[in-house]
Amino acid sequence: MKELEQIILERGTILPGDILKIDSFLNHQIDVKVLDMIGEEFYKIFKDSNPDKIMTIEASGIAIATAASRYFGSIPVLFAKKTYALNMSANTYQSHEHSYTRDIDYNVQVSKDYLHEGERILILDDFLANGEAMNSMIDICNQAGAIIVGCGSVVGKSYQPGIQRIKDMGYHVECLASVKSMSDDSIEFE
Amino acid sequence: MKELEQIILERGTILPGDILKIDSFLNHQIDVKVLDMIGEEFYKIFKDSNPDKIMTIEASGIAIATAASRYFGSIPVLFAKKTYALNMSANTYQSHEHSYTRDIDYNVQVSKDYLHEGERILILDDFLANGEAMNSMIDICNQAGAIIVGCGSVVGKSYQPGIQRIKDMGYHVECLASVKSMSDDSIEFE
Repeated sequence: MKELEQIILERGTILPGDILKIDSFLNHQIDVKVLDMIGEEFYKIFKDSNPDKIMTIEASGIAIATAASRYFGSIPVLFAKKTYALNMSANTYQSHEHSYTRDIDYNVQVSKDYLHEGERILILDDFLANGEAMNSMIDICNQAGAIIVGCGSVVGKSYQPGIQRIKDMGYHVECLASVKSMSDDSIEFE
Repeated sequence: MKELEQIILERGTILPGDILKIDSFLNHQIDVKVLDMIGEEFYKIFKDSNPDKIMTIEASGIAIATAASRYFGSIPVLFAKKTYALNMSANTYQSHEHSYTRDIDYNVQVSKDYLHEGERILILDDFLANGEAMNSMIDICNQAGAIIVGCGSVVGKSYQPGIQRIKDMGYHVECLASVKSMSDDSIEFE
């Protein structure tokens, strides 16, 4: 998606440790016009997969998934939680995720009340690099017997193993902007 | 807002420890139609306050703030972060919050890149009970010299001190549904 690549080039920054920071328009401050463009693009890609629900993971994923939902007729969004909270049912599907940007391990949880066998799930997230977050959501869908109809990420890093790993599992994976390589001051897209 | 009160009565649950769980439509699974109704209602209440930006706090607040933003002409959303992340600038405004539902203390952070002196900020969140989260956002706005044009919460608990405390500071506070009292099996609204 050329328009998004241009926005990343103009408004993203590269930090030491191979981190692409896009918190000027998505991960901290959110440009809602860009967000809706992202949501619409996911709809164009996955509209024929007929999802019943969009799954994502807190925090930034929530903006992306709710934006996309409107194009799919406002289907429900389900966001996986990263920590145990008192207001969460003990009745949960759980998986583990290592966060690269925070360098800690999360226990990813989804209530069994909101994910069911046979439900058609579109998984959306902001970044797909090592694929930890996406993998944990796939794991949870599989535990529930839900049908994963697609996996979409706003940004993918094709030089890291996440995208290929999820393709190898047989899922339809799409990244709106795929970073082929990144140096201290430049980004090359696929 | 009668429609929201009805949804809370029908789809919310009360947990021990005075916790109102609305994760069937807002805090875990999100009903995007209800979300947009919430966003539109905040617009009706605060439209004359002319905000430049909406501030909220992760995670559920992100859905609420981005939904509201569209009614305000897609003004930027800025979500405060609750933990230190490697992809966050060290150049931040910080405040503390005690989370009642998780029983832990957070360091709430907002990058100085995205909050400026004189900016008109509308603060939105999901719950306003003790007011910890709202207070930390007010504190951060004040550190930045930003102008708080209003504070909105989807649910307020008027029998807890948060709402009154923020009113006493002189801010315009509105809760779409104000819980007057709650027992094990009933909710009474203002």
